[in-house]
Amino acid sequence: MNNTVYLDNSATTVVCDRAIEYINHALSVNYGNPSSLHVMGMQAEEELRKSRAAVAAMLSCREDEIFFTGSGTEANNTAVFGAARARRKRGNRIVTTAVEHPSVLEAVKLLEDEGFEVIRLVPDVNGKIREGDIFEAVNKDTVLVSIMLVNNETGALQPIKTARAAVTRAAAPALIHCDAVQGFGKMKISVADLGIDLLTASAHKIHGPKGVGILYKKKNVHIPAYIVGGGQESGLRSGTESVPLISGLRGAIEELPKTDEKVRAVRDYAAELFGGCGFAKINSPTDALPYIINISVPGYRSETLLHYLESKGIFVSSGSACAKGAGSYVLRAAGLSSDRVDSALRISFSRFNSKEDVDRLFSALKAAKDTLRSSK
Amino acid sequence: MNNTVYLDNSATTVVCDRAIEYINHALSVNYGNPSSLHVMGMQAEEELRKSRAAVAAMLSCREDEIFFTGSGTEANNTAVFGAARARRKRGNRIVTTAVEHPSVLEAVKLLEDEGFEVIRLVPDVNGKIREGDIFEAVNKDTVLVSIMLVNNETGALQPIKTARAAVTRAAAPALIHCDAVQGFGKMKISVADLGIDLLTASAHKIHGPKGVGILYKKKNVHIPAYIVGGGQESGLRSGTESVPLISGLRGAIEELPKTDEKVRAVRDYAAELFGGCGFAKINSPTDALPYIINISVPGYRSETLLHYLESKGIFVSSGSACAKGAGSYVLRAAGLSSDRVDSALRISFSRFNSKEDVDRLFSALKAAKDTLRSSK
Repeated sequence: MNNTVYLDNSATTVVCDRAIEYINHALSVNYGNPSSLHVMGMQAEEELRKSRAAVAAMLSCREDEIFFTGSGTEANNTAVFGAARARRKRGNRIVTTAVEHPSVLEAVKLLEDEGFEVIRLVPDVNGKIREGDIFEAVNKDTVLVSIMLVNNETGALQPIKTARAAVTRAAAPALIHCDAVQGFGKMKISVADLGIDLLTASAHKIHGPKGVGILYKKKNVHIPAYIVGGGQESGLRSGTESVPLISGLRGAIEELPKTDEKVRAVRDYAAELFGGCGFAKINSPTDALPYIINISVPGYRSETLLHYLESKGIFVSSGSACAKGAGSYVLRAAGLSSDRVDSALRISFSRFNSKEDVDRLFSALKAAKDTLRSSK
Repeated sequence: MNNTVYLDNSATTVVCDRAIEYINHALSVNYGNPSSLHVMGMQAEEELRKSRAAVAAMLSCREDEIFFTGSGTEANNTAVFGAARARRKRGNRIVTTAVEHPSVLEAVKLLEDEGFEVIRLVPDVNGKIREGDIFEAVNKDTVLVSIMLVNNETGALQPIKTARAAVTRAAAPALIHCDAVQGFGKMKISVADLGIDLLTASAHKIHGPKGVGILYKKKNVHIPAYIVGGGQESGLRSGTESVPLISGLRGAIEELPKTDEKVRAVRDYAAELFGGCGFAKINSPTDALPYIINISVPGYRSETLLHYLESKGIFVSSGSACAKGAGSYVLRAAGLSSDRVDSALRISFSRFNSKEDVDRLFSALKAAKDTLRSSK
């Protein structure tokens, strides 16, 4: 696979060296159960504490505000169900967007079935939620506002700070949750600055392992546990913690570059090539997170392009991995034409990508146009 | 830690070589997202499939009856909440035992708060549930019977097969769930033979990694998903699967010995030493699973003994790791005296233990009696 160009880093990433090192240490040396009372348990617990500290430093919060889960999905479920259930006696409205990750959308849908009123905000043509819409949607009956930090298909940054302003203005009893899976480790995040109560992140989008999610819960904000049992993670998430994966997450954090300069240069290069080529349209806003650029090649179906590229050793996606195969509901919600939606490709970068990778992608897409039959 | 005697294998185990090898392959080579449409996704999905097949072979069931979760706890929650909610219109009774793992007990307690009637069977002095009690408890309103296969503190085998007979006799609409975390990989299990609908297992008790649980769900038995989102695991458990850990589980299964001969010899040796020494009482039934022997040293507190042993490099537990610190509710439910409960030690073996380990434990406990002040 040496000739591989992996441009699907928003789906998942290769695990970096330090993460692998830490994981292996926890598998074979520091293998105690963090709940065990003896020193092997305490050493395992200390591993968790060090990882908690590393995550807290990333979010500018306290160590005891960080809880580990089995996935970003589980953290999203815990936050959404937890917030709605904790506040259900104080109101009935949930405000979210139509472009959230399925783990928020599905949870909210179940709450709607239970009787909650759900407002799903729709983005503008750039994929961004309008601040005015947030103010309009949040009323005094609102118990939860859940808005993502960065859209996983376009990289569009959402105005999450507006949620706090809207909640304050409406004097709503709402908790504010932010799914930051695509932003964590890729931009500066301060939970205090964002004004949120709950935040979700994940390890495997930043060269950590699959199987560990992060839930930030603000001190003195109370939500019920979602997974119950032995009372691990201060009672908020039961189940023996995966010390190897949680250690690996810390390794990934330690290896993160200080700036996104390299990725930004690669993205800017891609934007220039695709923006000027005539056969592609860029679906990501210009101020998007530089780790994602979403393009369409009108006249060609995403899946056909994806498989053509794959045959050349180039990996991109047609949308989020979690929406396997279906046309993008994110681009559709932004009001893009079917032609654009059906021909969309998500190209997602990591620090391991180079301009040469973009060149190979660009050449391959040009060749695809000559080789493949247009779907028009 | 070369001089360590690790006898806390029911809390967690060291990860074996093949598991480590498979984990590392998935971390750095086969690192795709199993939901991705391209070949890297398919290769990751194939890893999952191979692990599913390995687990299915262990349980004598179909591959598509195996679902991966983030922990045994999550699998227990999914089974218990799922079964109760799927059948709630058909009845109101849940039958379980007082000696289940906290991840069953806590879930059942929340269901009780929701209005379910809960019968918690109490074991005999050997820690075993009486078959007659199961027949008596299961009535035509019973929607869930959840009984563990092997008790995690004593190794007592529970009469789970009786659940099917009782459900059939009562013509109950119940689903039958079995928490088999302590038995999986340590005894022959056939789900058909046990007559169950749902079963829970875990990787980290059999030298696999922490962070992956297994749920068996019988074909054509329907329960709602507990963690919702992208629809992974055929919709039953959303969230990107931890391919590394799930591959590691397969490695652990492949390395399992064909018989429990070695562990049985070590346990029999321990039973002989402690049974004949005069200062200890054995709390495990004689026909218990050979991986656990629970003893009491009346007159000495478990925690004091545990820390004394630890100072000699010997690791045991005072109960289950998940009941951190509290006196054993399992032994109490079996009707043992406070003296026995408060001085209990769980000694749990793996194939890596030897009779020499038992000798060291025995000598250290004798020395403890001379050194420590009796709590009497």
